[in-house]
Amino acid sequence: MTSSDRSAGPDSIIGILGGGQLGRMLALAGARLGLRCQVYAPEPESPAFDVVRRITEADYSDEVALARFAEDVDIVTYEFENVPDKAANFLSSRLSVRPGPKALSVSQDRVVEKTFARECGLGVPDFEPVDSVEDLTRALERLGRPAVLKTRRFGYDGKGQVVVRQGDSPETAFAAIGRQPAILEAFVPFEREISVLIVRGVDGEIRHYDPVENVHRGGILRTSTVPATIDVGLSAKAALMGTVLAEKLDYVGVLAVELFVTREKTLLLNEMAPRVHNSGHWTEAACHCSQFENHMRAVAGLPLGSTERHSDAVMQNLIGQDVENWRRLAAEEGAVLHLYGKRDQRDGRKMGHVTRLSPLTRS
Amino acid sequence: MTSSDRSAGPDSIIGILGGGQLGRMLALAGARLGLRCQVYAPEPESPAFDVVRRITEADYSDEVALARFAEDVDIVTYEFENVPDKAANFLSSRLSVRPGPKALSVSQDRVVEKTFARECGLGVPDFEPVDSVEDLTRALERLGRPAVLKTRRFGYDGKGQVVVRQGDSPETAFAAIGRQPAILEAFVPFEREISVLIVRGVDGEIRHYDPVENVHRGGILRTSTVPATIDVGLSAKAALMGTVLAEKLDYVGVLAVELFVTREKTLLLNEMAPRVHNSGHWTEAACHCSQFENHMRAVAGLPLGSTERHSDAVMQNLIGQDVENWRRLAAEEGAVLHLYGKRDQRDGRKMGHVTRLSPLTRS
Repeated sequence: MTSSDRSAGPDSIIGILGGGQLGRMLALAGARLGLRCQVYAPEPESPAFDVVRRITEADYSDEVALARFAEDVDIVTYEFENVPDKAANFLSSRLSVRPGPKALSVSQDRVVEKTFARECGLGVPDFEPVDSVEDLTRALERLGRPAVLKTRRFGYDGKGQVVVRQGDSPETAFAAIGRQPAILEAFVPFEREISVLIVRGVDGEIRHYDPVENVHRGGILRTSTVPATIDVGLSAKAALMGTVLAEKLDYVGVLAVELFVTREKTLLLNEMAPRVHNSGHWTEAACHCSQFENHMRAVAGLPLGSTERHSDAVMQNLIGQDVENWRRLAAEEGAVLHLYGKRDQRDGRKMGHVTRLSPLTRS
Repeated sequence: MTSSDRSAGPDSIIGILGGGQLGRMLALAGARLGLRCQVYAPEPESPAFDVVRRITEADYSDEVALARFAEDVDIVTYEFENVPDKAANFLSSRLSVRPGPKALSVSQDRVVEKTFARECGLGVPDFEPVDSVEDLTRALERLGRPAVLKTRRFGYDGKGQVVVRQGDSPETAFAAIGRQPAILEAFVPFEREISVLIVRGVDGEIRHYDPVENVHRGGILRTSTVPATIDVGLSAKAALMGTVLAEKLDYVGVLAVELFVTREKTLLLNEMAPRVHNSGHWTEAACHCSQFENHMRAVAGLPLGSTERHSDAVMQNLIGQDVENWRRLAAEEGAVLHLYGKRDQRDGRKMGHVTRLSPLTRS
């Protein structure tokens, strides 16, 4: 390489906070661009540790380890939105953290997130902040039942949320989520759930992948299908909503935006994630440039890659014992198998995914 | 994973001999299957070291390091055919080395290779072993001029070979290749060069990728294009020739077979390589399952993956200063860029490749 600026080009060393499958896939994609990655994670058995030469095994509160990490790498990114504020600020004061701190603070708190989205002009389910049983009682009166009570922070895969139905007591519901600062969201009788992945470069260039249709079970994503069964207009609107959010956040990297399609064919923001996303795993098998590669390109200051599909795709998560079918899936024609190298199989744990490709029906 | 047999399944630890770009791409493909890889190479700056957690930095003659490596891993494979006999035998006596020792010994020596191919019923350019200037003089009388003098061992990228034309002295030619044991091959006025990649599993299952058309410059592969401009019959014949070789070698893994297409549309073996091959790099961008993944599947005892293409492809090597165009190539629509993370750019050094995809014209 001829560039002497390691912070923009294939010579950069990218630090990745988080050692799960997303960090692992980011590191693998980075490697295909010639980037070196260093993974920071507290768990010794982190799947991402297996695919990089340099690791930092330390807690996110360990400022000695964080300082050394900041010296080792040129740019920092992350695989999860719940990076502790203190760690994010500590690193941001020393080097570029991409996506930036604003994306993190907005997406870490559901009230802040929905308020921000509303201010951006996006439709969101009606909501009320809830800090007490009294708040919840009042909020239920205004929003009606059923409604969804969620913790403001640290929710994922359906954890930290409960549906409050007719007859349910506010006390029980608030206790069920651990009496934490919360949000009550009006129940959206949605027709389907979609998501759209936006990627934005350091120079402001924006691209998006085709929206996908998601099916959840028990709060966990089961399948993502592309193309989604929505019309072209709605597809364009989803992309536009994601684009607005990315612009307003001065975002760098891949931003995942989950949307409800209502019966009236309007789009409401469900949530966003400032990172690569499970509903974008199909891009590795069906696109010229995957979400992982495009995230690393954006973070490293490389030009963005094409987000076009060469195939239709259905991505299915392999959760818990699903992965025991690996041999059959590995042998299935047209199926692209991806396993995360996790040694311990547990109920509800994402062990891998399989993407079934078929010829392009429409782009 | 439920399998307790680490030598067949995604829990296996695969040892890879050789730390260049092929080893790197094997490790990356292995990671997508959940396999852990350990790379063994003597050079501290080996590109493959960057993408694995465990490395062995040692000479191939270091039996202490080899013994420890054999304990660390479950199965051994390699990225290059010139694994020293002693190292291969040392490891083979302790654990499975795939492809097996026969594939190595046959492909390490051009006389053994061509004799073997001829015994398998394959067409080969006429040849004579050459151990002295006298041998060479006699061989030139029988095979005519021009003819190609090659070292029997350790040739790659056009190194270790010289064309002997009218008027050239046998003494000069033999000196030019270092007076080593050699082979004189009749000059083949070929119309084009193609190669075919075969993959064979532990259970004997065989698949092949579509033959590709290769263009060399200065002895180094420049481009591989698929489909090759040959008819279906010739394509099938190429696959059959590769299949015969793989069967006769009781081969496990990817076998690369380079062939000349003569003006009379016959196929003659140029050479074979018991490993993934530069002319198969396009498979990463254009197939459901790349040569790298299929090699790792075969070696680890997993079912083979589909070798079908979803796109046409032209792979172009980025050699030496070609790589300085990385930014333009990264931004090119329809181009899939792969850089090897090599820090030192040198003339003739393979720094990366780019695969340009286009819609499938015929399968």
